[in-house]
This record gives sequence, structure tokens and C-alpha cells, in this order.
Amino acid sequence: MASIDLNADLGEGFGAWQLGDDDAMLEIVTSANVACGFHAGDPAGLLRVCRSAAERGVRIGAQVGYHDLSGFGRRFIDVDPEDLLAEVVYQIGALQAIAQAGGSTVSYVKPHGALYNTIVTHREQAAAVAAAVRMVDPALPVLGMTGSVFFEEAGRLGLRTVAEAFADRAYTPGGQLLSRREPGAVLADPTAIAERAVAMVATGAVTAVDGTPLPITVESLCVHGDSPGAVQIATAVRDRLAAAGAEIKAFC
Amino acid sequence: MASIDLNADLGEGFGAWQLGDDDAMLEIVTSANVACGFHAGDPAGLLRVCRSAAERGVRIGAQVGYHDLSGFGRRFIDVDPEDLLAEVVYQIGALQAIAQAGGSTVSYVKPHGALYNTIVTHREQAAAVAAAVRMVDPALPVLGMTGSVFFEEAGRLGLRTVAEAFADRAYTPGGQLLSRREPGAVLADPTAIAERAVAMVATGAVTAVDGTPLPITVESLCVHGDSPGAVQIATAVRDRLAAAGAEIKAFC
Amino acid sequence: MASIDLNADLGEGFGAWQLGDDDAMLEIVTSANVACGFHAGDPAGLLRVCRSAAERGVRIGAQVGYHDLSGFGRRFIDVDPEDLLAEVVYQIGALQAIAQAGGSTVSYVKPHGALYNTIVTHREQAAAVAAAVRMVDPALPVLGMTGSVFFEEAGRLGLRTVAEAFADRAYTPGGQLLSRREPGAVLADPTAIAERAVAMVATGAVTAVDGTPLPITVESLCVHGDSPGAVQIATAVRDRLAAAGAEIKAFC
Amino acid sequence: MASIDLNADLGEGFGAWQLGDDDAMLEIVTSANVACGFHAGDPAGLLRVCRSAAERGVRIGAQVGYHDLSGFGRRFIDVDPEDLLAEVVYQIGALQAIAQAGGSTVSYVKPHGALYNTIVTHREQAAAVAAAVRMVDPALPVLGMTGSVFFEEAGRLGLRTVAEAFADRAYTPGGQLLSRREPGAVLADPTAIAERAVAMVATGAVTAVDGTPLPITVESLCVHGDSPGAVQIATAVRDRLAAAGAEIKAFC
Repeated sequence: MASIDLNADLGEGFGAWQLGDDDAMLEIVTSANVACGFHAGDPAGLLRVCRSAAERGVRIGAQVGYHDLSGFGRRFIDVDPEDLLAEVVYQIGALQAIAQAGGSTVSYVKPHGALYNTIVTHREQAAAVAAAVRMVDPALPVLGMTGSVFFEEAGRLGLRTVAEAFADRAYTPGGQLLSRREPGAVLADPTAIAERAVAMVATGAVTAVDGTPLPITVESLCVHGDSPGAVQIATAVRDRLAAAGAEIKAFC
Repeated sequence: MASIDLNADLGEGFGAWQLGDDDAMLEIVTSANVACGFHAGDPAGLLRVCRSAAERGVRIGAQVGYHDLSGFGRRFIDVDPEDLLAEVVYQIGALQAIAQAGGSTVSYVKPHGALYNTIVTHREQAAAVAAAVRMVDPALPVLGMTGSVFFEEAGRLGLRTVAEAFADRAYTPGGQLLSRREPGAVLADPTAIAERAVAMVATGAVTAVDGTPLPITVESLCVHGDSPGAVQIATAVRDRLAAAGAEIKAFC
Repeated sequence: MASIDLNADLGEGFGAWQLGDDDAMLEIVTSANVACGFHAGDPAGLLRVCRSAAERGVRIGAQVGYHDLSGFGRRFIDVDPEDLLAEVVYQIGALQAIAQAGGSTVSYVKPHGALYNTIVTHREQAAAVAAAVRMVDPALPVLGMTGSVFFEEAGRLGLRTVAEAFADRAYTPGGQLLSRREPGAVLADPTAIAERAVAMVATGAVTAVDGTPLPITVESLCVHGDSPGAVQIATAVRDRLAAAGAEIKAFC
Repeated sequence: MASIDLNADLGEGFGAWQLGDDDAMLEIVTSANVACGFHAGDPAGLLRVCRSAAERGVRIGAQVGYHDLSGFGRRFIDVDPEDLLAEVVYQIGALQAIAQAGGSTVSYVKPHGALYNTIVTHREQAAAVAAAVRMVDPALPVLGMTGSVFFEEAGRLGLRTVAEAFADRAYTPGGQLLSRREPGAVLADPTAIAERAVAMVATGAVTAVDGTPLPITVESLCVHGDSPGAVQIATAVRDRLAAAGAEIKAFC
């Protein structure tokens, strides 16, 4: 069975506000998508999570997002691609310094929330994000959805693209995530999610929402860090994968 | 006559709002203290000013400030030193990536506004800023006031300290800047300011507000970029220094 | 000739940043669309402009916008209608207190920038803005575009809708504003703009970009406060209207 | 036994971030100090808590603070008193509209965090807050510390001042709160806190940290809404007061 990376969104508190249990998640995942202060995360909190990740040998990725604290980066913003490019450069650079101060480094970039979803299809914003990553460091891989225009643009610029899959989300027969507004879009049972994770990694396929088998490329599995039961689900996924003989390690 | 650096605060617009004439100032100064987005400056604007500075060979410094956009960083904030440390690391890192994307690099750090004034005497905040610079890069010089506790702390950490003087500000006999609230604290006449600049550089002394001569260490002269007549004053300072035989070049 | 209102966006500075010449514009317009702090405007600046408006008898409107300071409210944000409703209530209330402290009151509401443009066609956001106005005060008129879904929703809730026109913008034959991206979308010549203003008010019609006459409903003319030559253009519009016998007075 | 008001800070979430259990606390307190968006609270969240308070007949106060989301209003900011005045007017007005939309009204004002502490002694900021409240509505009472310069300034302007006490905090012999940095400054045992609350209300006195009895004026008891065990402590205080025969009702 192949090796697999587990990634989760971390460092998403802000000031007095906490979100999720970063330390618990860092015991489970191999890659931490650390917020960069635009949709979540303040510098002191980011430094803390980077230190914790460094101590545990967990890889750090820059989780770049829209500049929208009140919306947690979950709302599409029709930002000018030139502005977006500069915003992504700024965020990666900020986290690079924080990660270094914490004893580590930024190893990859993963867009967050509405930006992630938007650049599955929005060519100009996708190109801006890819160009920003390349400007900072052409050796930085990007984490995202296979088949997205973001991956097209990133590939065109010579960036390494790392495909992720979601064990707790339903897929359409076309390989997209079923909208969260649809019933059954998000799975909640730890055992079912863990079984699905193993199936994805072992067979390179997932059963779509209509029952048809769907081939899936997966170098990294995303586990959620802030949903109810997040730690329990992530633990189940990790344990079940390990029991099935998968080597759990960072993709980079 | 010694060589001298001219520095100014640039990149201090935000979104739709402009401040000062960055391009005109970049024709005059040798070091640009570029805002980092906490008291002023948005990523796209910072990228533009870094590109312009790179094209002209003007050095870029990270002008770090309090996280206070509505106060333009001009109000003391009793921020926890640990938070301040992380905020300074974050700002320098963000500008490093932006400067690199613009074809240059961050060559030094200069605190802004109320942070600058506070760390003349506030030991904990001074130590936090110095430690942050060192964490990012111990080879980065810091620009500031001779005799400040910031320079003590920076020196203790092995950072190079670069002393600056203000040709358009009155000094107390003790070597401090006369408070802006006092009459005569800020000079406005370009010729008088330019003469004073030459005297500072040529003699290593300035006349204090009570008429006594005051020895002054000056490796860089700060000229203001956003006051009325800023470009005219900076031009007068530069021209008069050049006429007096000073070599105008970046300190680093 | 009918009476006509002149409105302009004012109070759009923020902290250290100025935008436009509020005092000069307040000598010209009869209605001031004062920013509410979400896309522009800080409380102290809003209080100043409200005091100035009160002294001159200029009506104050709440210029509500998206919560997007760095984008100046000019970018569509896919904000949840429930959140938008609360944001509009919040903004109007804040300006009501400021206006009262300045010796006046909020007399109407005008959406700003991307929100203005969005709710010409976006039903849910239009309904949210209209519902918010009604919650605060059902007697508050709203200023906007005839034919917009915003006016439909506002009318349905019993709000008075006040139609405005733009003397410096080209219109499509369908009565929409020609996109700013098209050549000729924005007029710059003060005399031409002033003539067009008079024609609009006198004849209730405007010549569309293809030369066809277009009937137009206009209770208020919008003049821009922050473009180059804004004061000169607004003065020309006012003078020419007065010379043509129009009574220039607030619509409310 | 006299009647007593119970107040707590509520509405302090922001966007995706929660803080405390507003609905549980609204079952206990009689006065809700609702955040106004400057140190915490977004419009939609404020509207929700105002609706819940209105349904339960809990009074709403405007909990005004420094404009410092990342610091949660807990850091002194040396803000200009004129700016502070306008910021307080703005916040109260915003919450007035939100409270009205939620079916209630703002019945009083209570400063938050570092602003609360600062205006115990800072004359200019105290005067600014008092003047702001008076500008909005001279009939609005203010909640705060007896003996503070804030109460002096508020009294001078004719505002009603309502003295609060803290059952879970140690007092110095001089009647000040013992700094949170000192051991024993914050009590944690629900029973002890509840007993202390009863003693305060029944006897008008509290035992200072050195054992001496201290007369205390108390029209309202502050219970914390966001500390661990907050709901349990507040319940114990309310139950014990009721058992002792106190009438628990809003001060206004």
C-alpha cells in the first residue's frame, strides 16, 4: 500500500478566539496548513503553532486566503488578480518568517476556503495564485484539486501540484465535491470516514454519490481540524490507514 | 566630507488612499523605509513601490509598526512583548517576499511612528523588536536613535545599529527630539533644513533648541515623504549635501 | 423647470488618509452620502463631515457598503444576505448617532460601490439592504437606480425610492450605465457634463451611447467628489442648472 | 434585602469564532453588556444576541471598547480623546440600531477591558467617553467603578452612574481590584464566589485582600461570561442571591 500524507487546517484562532485543538491535531497529521493572517491567524498564534509543528516534525504549508477576517475567507471576493497576486506573496512571506522563527520552514502552499473553491474554475484568480507562489519560490508545491484550473495554471508555471482528497465529503460522478448544501455532502461517522480513507488510498478510487466508482488521485488526505469530533475522526483515519499498512508521511 | 544615506517612509498608501509621492521621493533618497501593512500599505501598493525602488537601486527597509491602521501606527499600544515580537517577524517576512517579487530584498529594519518613539525608552518592547529582527536575520541592520534602549538591546543581540538624524526637527540639549507639541519643533523652510543637514554631516554636531552645540552621530538622514513640500525639502537637502561634497549613498 | 437634488459621496477619508475635498463639495451639493466606516470613513472624520453638513444645511445620507476597507467597497463580496442585513443596520445606526452628535440626522440611505452595482440585479442582497433600511426606519428613503431589483424590493417594503442619474456617465440604450471598462464611459469635460445635467433635468431624457434618446427619471443628480476636477465639475453642474432656472434643493 | 442586577459581557464572538455561551448566560443575567464590533462582535452575531436578550427581557447595554480586534480591547491605546469620543458615539449608535432591529433598545453603556481600566484614572479618555454617552442620549446610565474619574466626569455631565462590584475578584484595602497578576486576584470556586456576592449585597461590604472590611457600593454585580465554568459560577451566584432573599432585577 502506498504512503499517504494527512493534512489539516491549523493556526486558525485570532486574538482571544480559539478554533480547534491545534496541538491534538499535530499529533495526527503530517502536514499542517497554517493560516497566514488574512482569513484567520494572528502572528503570535501562528508562531506558537509553527513551533509545535516543528517540534513534532510536521510539515508547514502556507494556507493563503482572501483578506476577509469577518467572513473567515469563506466568501468569494471579486478581487483584482494583481491585488490577489500581491496578497498571496505577502502571506507566504509572512508565514515563511514565522515558520523560520519557530524552527521550521514553509514547505508548500494550500489556498483556503472560498479562494480554494473559486480557483477550481476562475482562471484569472487561479493564475494569480500560481504566479504568486512561483514568484516566492518555484520549488514550492501547491496542494489542491486535480482537474482544477489552478492545477493547470500551476503546472504551466512548472510548479509541483499535489492532489488531495476528502474522506469526509461526498463526490459527484464528475469528480467534484458535492455542495455542502446537498444532503449527505458531509460524512460524520468516524468509522465510515476511516474506511473511505483506506479505500481511497488502497484502490485509488472512491464511490460517487450515485454509486458509481470514481478514480481518484490522492497524494494527501485532508482531515478537518475544527469540526465537532475533528480529533476523533482524524485519529480514526490515521489508525485505520496504519492498520491497513499505509505509511503515513508528509508528501514533501 | 563623509558619505551619507537619505531615508524616507514610503509605501504608506492603503487601498484607494494615497499618501505622498513615492516615485518622486525614490528619485531623491537612497533608502526607502517601506510600510509592511500593519500601520499602512497594502500588498499591491507595496509591490509597486518595491519594484520602483529596485529599478532605481534604492535600498528597501522594512518599516515595521503597531497593528493599527486607523491610527496609522502613531498611538502607543500596550501590546504584549511576545505578541509584538511575532508581529515584527510577520511584517519583515511579508515585505521580504514582496521585495523579492519586486526584484530586490529587505536590507534593514526601521520601526515606525509610535513604536519608534516607544522603544527609545520602553525596554520590553525594544527587546521584542530587536529579538524579532535577529530571528529573521541577524545580519539585518536596524535604523534608529542613538542612545535609545532599542539600540542597547539590538547591540546586545549583535545587530548592527545605524544612527539616523532629523534635519527638520529641533533637538533638546539632551539629544532627544523636541516634542511636536512644542513651538519650533518642526522646521519647514527647505533652505534652513538643507543647511542644517549639511552642518550635521560635516561637523557631526547640531545646535540644540537652547543654542548649545550637541554632538550627533549620523549615518543616515531621515527626510519626510508625506508632509507638505516633502519633495521640495528632500530635493533641497540632497542638492545642498551634494554641493557640499557629501557622497550620497545607502548605508548598506 | 423642476427642482433637483445634487448628491455626492463624502466622508471617505480614513485615519491619516484623505480623499476628496469634503468642505468644498459641501458648498455645492444638497445631499451628502456620508460613508459609514465599512468601506471608508472613521468615526472622527465622519463626525467632522456631519458637523460641516449640518452647518450648511446639507442633508446627510448613510452611504452603506461592503465590509471591505482594503477594497474600498468596490469589489463584489458574496456575503450571506443575513449578514448583509445586520451590517447595513449597524452602519445606518452608527451614522445616525454620529449625525446627531454633529447636529443633524440621517435623512436617507444610499448603497456604495460594488454593493450599489450588485443590487441592481442581485435579488437576495437587494432584499437584505431594503429590509435593513426598513428595520431601522421605514420612513427613510433610499437613493438608487430606477429599474433595479433594489428599488423593486424597497418598493415592496413600502420604502420611498428616489431615482438618481449620473451626468458624467454614458448610458446604454437599455438605461444602464455603460461599464467603466468601455471607452467613453466617463465624461470629463465640465461644460459637457453640466449641459448634460441640464438636459436631464429639463427634458427628463438623456442621449444614450448609440445616439438614441432615453427617458430618464431623475430626482437627484450624483456628482463625484473624489475624481480629479471633482469640485470644478460639480460647480459647473450647479451653476449651469441654476442658470437654467432649476431650483437646487434636497429631495427630502 | 435589596434588589440587585447581574451583568455579563456577551456578544463577543466574531465571524467564525465563538466566545462563551450567550444563550445560557441570558438565562441568568438581567443586564447584557453587548459588544459593539470594535473589540469583538460582528453585526449578525450582535443581532442574534440582541434578539435573544429581547425575548428574555434582559436589558441591553452598549459595551464600548478600543478599536482593537486583535487585542480584544485588552490593551491600552493612547487614542486621541476626540477620536475616542467619536468612536464611542459610533459604537453606541450601531448597537442602538441593532438592538432595535432585535426588538429591544440600548438601556445603558459599559466600557470594556482596557478602556474600562484606563478611565478609572485617565481623565481625558474618561471625559471623552462620558461626553460621547451624553451626546447620544443624556438619559443613558453608565456602568462602572465607584471612585473612578469616569464616574466623576459622567456625574459632572449629569449622567446616572451605576456602581458595579465583582464577586470573583479580590479587592485592595483602597477599594481597587487587585491586579490579575497577583496571586489570589481571581476567585474560581462557585460557592465562595456566590457567598461573597451575597455578603456584598446584604452588607454593603467586602473583605479586602488584607482582611480588613471594605464598604462597597453595588447596584450591579458583574459575572464573567467567557471564563471556564462561567455558566456554573453565574448560576451559583444567582441561586444563592435568590435564596438569600435578594430580588434579582435590572437596575434600569
